[in-house]
Amino acid sequence: MHRPNSGDQGLHAAPLDPVTDRGVDEFEAIDGLRARFERAARARVPNGPIPPPGELWIGDDAAVVAPTGQAPLVLATDLVVGGVHVDLELCSPSDIGYKAMMVTVSDLAAMGARPDYALLSMAAPAGTDLDALGQGVAEAAAVCGCVVVGGDLSAGAVLVVSMAVAGSLDPADHPGADLGADAGSGGTGLTRSGARPGDALVVTGPLGASAAGLRLLRHGRPGQGDDGRFDALSQAYRRPTARVAEGRLARRCGATAAVDVSDGLLADVGHLLDASGVGAALFDIPAAAGATTEEAQGGGEEYELVIATPDPEGMAAAFRGEGLRPFHIIGRCTDRPGERLLDGRPIETTGWRHRF
Amino acid sequence: MHRPNSGDQGLHAAPLDPVTDRGVDEFEAIDGLRARFERAARARVPNGPIPPPGELWIGDDAAVVAPTGQAPLVLATDLVVGGVHVDLELCSPSDIGYKAMMVTVSDLAAMGARPDYALLSMAAPAGTDLDALGQGVAEAAAVCGCVVVGGDLSAGAVLVVSMAVAGSLDPADHPGADLGADAGSGGTGLTRSGARPGDALVVTGPLGASAAGLRLLRHGRPGQGDDGRFDALSQAYRRPTARVAEGRLARRCGATAAVDVSDGLLADVGHLLDASGVGAALFDIPAAAGATTEEAQGGGEEYELVIATPDPEGMAAAFRGEGLRPFHIIGRCTDRPGERLLDGRPIETTGWRHRF
Repeated sequence: MHRPNSGDQGLHAAPLDPVTDRGVDEFEAIDGLRARFERAARARVPNGPIPPPGELWIGDDAAVVAPTGQAPLVLATDLVVGGVHVDLELCSPSDIGYKAMMVTVSDLAAMGARPDYALLSMAAPAGTDLDALGQGVAEAAAVCGCVVVGGDLSAGAVLVVSMAVAGSLDPADHPGADLGADAGSGGTGLTRSGARPGDALVVTGPLGASAAGLRLLRHGRPGQGDDGRFDALSQAYRRPTARVAEGRLARRCGATAAVDVSDGLLADVGHLLDASGVGAALFDIPAAAGATTEEAQGGGEEYELVIATPDPEGMAAAFRGEGLRPFHIIGRCTDRPGERLLDGRPIETTGWRHRF
Repeated sequence: MHRPNSGDQGLHAAPLDPVTDRGVDEFEAIDGLRARFERAARARVPNGPIPPPGELWIGDDAAVVAPTGQAPLVLATDLVVGGVHVDLELCSPSDIGYKAMMVTVSDLAAMGARPDYALLSMAAPAGTDLDALGQGVAEAAAVCGCVVVGGDLSAGAVLVVSMAVAGSLDPADHPGADLGADAGSGGTGLTRSGARPGDALVVTGPLGASAAGLRLLRHGRPGQGDDGRFDALSQAYRRPTARVAEGRLARRCGATAAVDVSDGLLADVGHLLDASGVGAALFDIPAAAGATTEEAQGGGEEYELVIATPDPEGMAAAFRGEGLRPFHIIGRCTDRPGERLLDGRPIETTGWRHRF
């Protein structure tokens, strides 16, 4: 859960039927809930700041808590709702399980954290293939090196799959004291709020594949010869990949901020810039083969990471050294907080919001 | 999530319309998922037993994991589904939030653990009063000394509230080496599987209040003069209490096993006996004022704890010393594993199961 001005978990840019424009905006609702939960926390934290120093609660990709005498714990939860985040006609139960696990792990990836333990909580209508759904969860867990240690299962009229993941910040991923105590990638992980003017903004892969995949799945396969592309794009929609190795390496390289692309590139960059209090001039946003410019800039559910770094050359060398795909430089942070330029022109973004 | 022979989270004996008798039984489904998740865990735990020594995964009230060099972490998740676990006509949004938090914390209480951090994951239809729902979550969190540090919020056709809670095992609650390394209340918390022949079985409070409360809420208030009782019973249904202090104290007193009453007393005692491989002779099951015998024995969603202890007198003195309500002795474990006697007669129980 996040600040009203920062998109996050659950905002998978769900490109199905937009919900109506009545009622309470998601970000307003979360603002109210956050205030309630912080007040209630006085029962546990009678004195001092809330959250306590070294902790992050609601407001970033994941929460970071620091139990006394223990290493920090990184916690995130995400929902996949049938008919909202996934079109049940276009995704198999196994795809849905896979996606539910990956989108939650992606929140940890954006903190530079390692996913360790997961809980699966699921409401499912009669006839749901729970075994296939569990297979997808298990496959994604194995890919992420995370284990599913518990859960809850209920009957329900609509399929809702919620994952909660607990992770850790590997001390080996910490850039160390030589970068200064104020480095964004410090003891609380890679937050959204540490980007500084002059930092390069990079994205870990080309964008728009998920949105293009959904478009192709809805409007039929393209003509003969495009099968490989169709498969790649539809897979990006059905089975996204959390960029865990990239997030951890970015943290180790002294990156200052990160966010995962769940709402759409421009919206999520906006969340990072807002949280960091900087502006940005963007250019050269890479589109996946077969994706439109609009899909690359605005399509959500990508789960690539946007990372701010003062040292893109050093980080690029580290990515090469670890055999990771090269990232793309898409802009630079400026010292004018409201500034949002794309190829020199002001941009306006909204991003996906639920309404209640 | 739990073994097929042990009821658990999510099985709140939901006394609404029973789901149909077709499809896959919940416990069978969980058995299959458990096997899948344990196989997938080889990606993280290449060698040795799964789960690793000192850890509990799927199969008890909550999972216990032991990150290297860190104190054990206790993890549980629970769902409250509109129309399944709560009748939306009879509960306010604030009640639903309160209940979702408490039923999840109850899983930790049954391990003798302390709830520390919670995540709220929620799908809600348009028009849901999210603020009131959050108020209920916040109230329950404050009562439990737990803080809500994150979450996810989505539009959805049906209200689903899922909480995940991370907790800890206070070393001060550990009975210590003098009780032997095989004490059920050891380093992995108070499991279901440690009860031994001769142990007393106790319950932390009278039973049937939640089921009686639902009955009264459905069939109207009783006659004049019963308002106090109506309020108490309806509150037991709407706003149950997790017995955190009782679970922790039981663990400190060397209790051997515990389970919370979510499926119904007889069903949940059965889960504990099955897991421990012992029998039991039960008697004198205490009914809440206004509850029928059937409600006391079979009504779910109580969240009192059933505890097995070799030393009921010592534990009673400790409960008095801490100002906790006195518990009720309801029977004794026997060395005949299949034995299930109530007032000398064999009992047959099923407990609530979802079907898919």
